Amino acid sequence: MDASKRIALDVMGGDNAPDCNLDGALAAVRAGVPAERLLLVGDEKTIRAGLESRGASVGEAPGSFAILHAPDVIGMEEKPGVALRAKPMSSISVATGAVKQGAAGAHVSMGNTGAVVGAATVGLKTLEGVRRPGIAVTIEFTGRPVTVLDMGANVVPKPEHLLQYGHMGAVFTRDVLKSESPRVGLLNIGEEESKGTDLLREAHALLSGSDLDFVGNVESGDLFKGGCDVVVTDGFTGNVVLKLMEGFAGFMMKLVMDQLKAHGAQWGPEALASIHKQVDYSEYGGALLLGVNGIVVIGHGRSDPTAVSNAIDLAARALDADVNGHIVVGLAGR
Amino acid sequence: MDASKRIALDVMGGDNAPDCNLDGALAAVRAGVPAERLLLVGDEKTIRAGLESRGASVGEAPGSFAILHAPDVIGMEEKPGVALRAKPMSSISVATGAVKQGAAGAHVSMGNTGAVVGAATVGLKTLEGVRRPGIAVTIEFTGRPVTVLDMGANVVPKPEHLLQYGHMGAVFTRDVLKSESPRVGLLNIGEEESKGTDLLREAHALLSGSDLDFVGNVESGDLFKGGCDVVVTDGFTGNVVLKLMEGFAGFMMKLVMDQLKAHGAQWGPEALASIHKQVDYSEYGGALLLGVNGIVVIGHGRSDPTAVSNAIDLAARALDADVNGHIVVGLAGR
Repeated sequence: MDASKRIALDVMGGDNAPDCNLDGALAAVRAGVPAERLLLVGDEKTIRAGLESRGASVGEAPGSFAILHAPDVIGMEEKPGVALRAKPMSSISVATGAVKQGAAGAHVSMGNTGAVVGAATVGLKTLEGVRRPGIAVTIEFTGRPVTVLDMGANVVPKPEHLLQYGHMGAVFTRDVLKSESPRVGLLNIGEEESKGTDLLREAHALLSGSDLDFVGNVESGDLFKGGCDVVVTDGFTGNVVLKLMEGFAGFMMKLVMDQLKAHGAQWGPEALASIHKQVDYSEYGGALLLGVNGIVVIGHGRSDPTAVSNAIDLAARALDADVNGHIVVGLAGR
Repeated sequence: MDASKRIALDVMGGDNAPDCNLDGALAAVRAGVPAERLLLVGDEKTIRAGLESRGASVGEAPGSFAILHAPDVIGMEEKPGVALRAKPMSSISVATGAVKQGAAGAHVSMGNTGAVVGAATVGLKTLEGVRRPGIAVTIEFTGRPVTVLDMGANVVPKPEHLLQYGHMGAVFTRDVLKSESPRVGLLNIGEEESKGTDLLREAHALLSGSDLDFVGNVESGDLFKGGCDVVVTDGFTGNVVLKLMEGFAGFMMKLVMDQLKAHGAQWGPEALASIHKQVDYSEYGGALLLGVNGIVVIGHGRSDPTAVSNAIDLAARALDADVNGHIVVGLAGR
């Protein structure tokens, strides 16, 4: 196995660790990711016992999982900076270290988002030419996926950062979502280029002057209309959007279920599953931290095994397509 | 009729003007607002014909509607500043003028939001002690309404503006929503006071030091949890939140309808209506521009007569409760 194609999975991260991550790893293997491509990071005894109870084998042989021991765990509620300093042998830090040292090309974690981002930013450094990493989340409401970045890594960006997010999002769209000629929009509160803040007016000018297929300003309601493939925003607004969609989706599902119950309707579970699938971006496997020297996928803390498997698959596709190589080439000279 | 309690309705504003506004005015009267409390602003011939065809009477007598002629209309897509200068006799400008001159206490419009806000800000000026007006929208997902401001009037506010939005939102909650001891939250991307931008950290400090019942930072997903009554935010983020909720609600309703159709389910229209009502903040009658010297209610361009009636009712309640008087008293000495 080419170590640079390996995926370090943080087995200890997330609300349902370690079981959910181990089940997710096995699901990923069933979905076509070779077991030897995975490096399971966390408490060795726990992982070994978990694999054995699932009838999976440990080791470097084909069809077996490799384990990288990490004795500590950073909790979901711990303050990232403090926790990273206090626990250099946490699964997050050890997995990041594996990528830094070339033992793996990707880190996948359902753990503390701030800690994963912090470890990656400090440990892996940015790719050549990248000024600031950004978190990209792909959502799909219209039959056509939209990738929004930044979703929270860079709360007060500069205009040049937003321009680079446009480039990185376009590379991701081409390489991983396999959509040629991605259209890039700038999240704003009106279509006119004069709208919004100084940041947005300057970013609008930079994006307009770039070789991206820039469609101009888009509004948050346009996320449901499919007018572009990449939406660029600052990390504060992106995070607000992300959490609002999560909250609204959960609220709406509950509302529909309550009404179903109240009216004794005849819906089968497949109708609900279909709605849920359409509002649930975890189908896309989580967020990608773009711009660091390694592939980093951050899943939701309450991911189920399917979401973990999707996150592993996302990392595999990003590695196979050489997203990071293309980002470096794409930004060279810009 | 006490002129200061009168409500100037922009009959020409909105996508379905004038019919929708006239139907809304009649609906408001059926719901208990005296006809003589309404001042119908717009093209006199059009309004007179519309009232006659609806069997309503015109004049100053009890049970009759008064008309204030305004020959021009500002379109929904016109640039607010340009349109206001070019059309001093538009229904929006004339209605604003009626409030300025004391012929009415409130202006209700489904028209061009930017023009309504611009006319009010320039024409009515701010209330004593208010630094910047803010647009307040009340939403209800949890059985307990939440008022969010600013929703777009003040895109780059100062910390002091956010503090005042907290005060104004609290007055509105007490006076109009009749909820004592309103809890105020600051929209942010995490609970810790160190989160977010400089603006938010400074606003957090100001709100913490105030006599408001400040619950600290809240996240956008918390809007669905009912943890506070007033959520303070800058106008950019507020506008993104508002449009995202609109887009998501419309998208989810379509999704549910599609699934109903696909599965031939037995839901009656009342189930859909119930869901729609819960995700549709137009039930609250639109947005209130708080902080100007007059009550200004801005409805959605695609309001139906019920929404227009609710907007008129909102204006009546705000006038009757003397929201603006309480804002001035509340901010005095702060």
